[in-house]
Amino acid sequence: MGYSESQIEGRNAVLEAFRSGKTVDRLYILDGCNDGPVLSIRREAKKSGAFIKYVEKERLDQLSQTGKHQGVIATVAAYEYADPEALWEAAEKSGEPPFFFLLDGIEDPHNLGAIIRTACQAGAHGVVIPKNRAVGLTAAVARTSAGALNYLPVARVTNISQTIEEWKKRGMWFACADMNGTEMYDCDLKGSIGLVIGSEGEGVSRLVKEKCDYRVSIPMKGQLDSLNASVAAGVLAYEIVRQRRGK
Amino acid sequence: MGYSESQIEGRNAVLEAFRSGKTVDRLYILDGCNDGPVLSIRREAKKSGAFIKYVEKERLDQLSQTGKHQGVIATVAAYEYADPEALWEAAEKSGEPPFFFLLDGIEDPHNLGAIIRTACQAGAHGVVIPKNRAVGLTAAVARTSAGALNYLPVARVTNISQTIEEWKKRGMWFACADMNGTEMYDCDLKGSIGLVIGSEGEGVSRLVKEKCDYRVSIPMKGQLDSLNASVAAGVLAYEIVRQRRGK
Repeated sequence: MGYSESQIEGRNAVLEAFRSGKTVDRLYILDGCNDGPVLSIRREAKKSGAFIKYVEKERLDQLSQTGKHQGVIATVAAYEYADPEALWEAAEKSGEPPFFFLLDGIEDPHNLGAIIRTACQAGAHGVVIPKNRAVGLTAAVARTSAGALNYLPVARVTNISQTIEEWKKRGMWFACADMNGTEMYDCDLKGSIGLVIGSEGEGVSRLVKEKCDYRVSIPMKGQLDSLNASVAAGVLAYEIVRQRRGK
Repeated sequence: MGYSESQIEGRNAVLEAFRSGKTVDRLYILDGCNDGPVLSIRREAKKSGAFIKYVEKERLDQLSQTGKHQGVIATVAAYEYADPEALWEAAEKSGEPPFFFLLDGIEDPHNLGAIIRTACQAGAHGVVIPKNRAVGLTAAVARTSAGALNYLPVARVTNISQTIEEWKKRGMWFACADMNGTEMYDCDLKGSIGLVIGSEGEGVSRLVKEKCDYRVSIPMKGQLDSLNASVAAGVLAYEIVRQRRGK
């Protein structure tokens, strides 16, 4: 585990970084450069949501570590995702029943960072995020996690609902945030538990919701529908902490 | 109450907006324009932390609603701060003991927006923020509050610790977030309560802390010091909600 950043320079190397699924955080392109390879790189960058910055040649020369940037430099997140089994090992090591966070499509890096930080502080044993339609472990996520990425395993899976199904067989119960669910105080959230948090706009997807054992709601007195995703995750996580501690 | 944005155009009008203490959110200035009045506007903008964007004449002409921008256009937050008494009136109207949030120096607009949203949904009757050393109700705050600004009174005071002192005389108790405080489950947070949240970096200032009746901590199992400010506010607010409801 752990997080660092590395820099990739030159057209082929940068294009390869995108195609192999690396998380490119920032992409510097020579302003006014529009030939074929650069257009391919821009297309990939837009697809992956990398932050593109058009700069002068002097700036690229200054950033370059190799002196051979060919008009493109990319900053790549060098985070190593954990194997999903690492979460179970962390739980076993703690001597407590497993407590995992499963995030079904968080898109905002600040929310993801804040949730990973919360998971760490609430004593969860790891976080699972999906490979697609969600933000990965970018530099912004690392920053808002305030270092939690160095302590907590974060695993990436292809299919959250499949992971839930498999882990249910290992004795785990799953609770998802759902504003039409049972009020959190009235759910038994002790024991081996996976807390499932949905995306900012859509909440937990139907397929994932159907796999969950509980649908849990936070009492709302205001005129809005919901809380910010990272706040909701924090409130639910600490209801689990309270129940686990028998308070 | 309520939030909207308005646009101010022309040198005198924009300078006047800054000097009268209006919250200028974005300032568009004609690129390359450096005469006296424009320099004064830039100075005021930097002091107030407005976001400055240097643009071409065509862009200003396009943005202009009056056709007389003179090289400067400002976007102004048209939020009306509530009178602090409005919080007490909201509490009285609800028939419940007052429940207020007091924010001692939140600097990040996303945190402030998320906390105002949480205050609304947890059933608090209002939020107090300080006039200095803190973010005001900018467009970014309005956006992350998800509309809560339209429902919840937000008042601005010169001195948070003085407000605490005055409101204690009216029967209110104050609890501040403090990682060395008593665990939140062991504090009596029912009744008339003011929840005091500190700034992202520094926490609650010493002077304010000394005025509080309780110092309340969130149990932490992880290796970090704290949670994100808006997550911590959410966890503490919902402990108050739980105790108020006798759950």
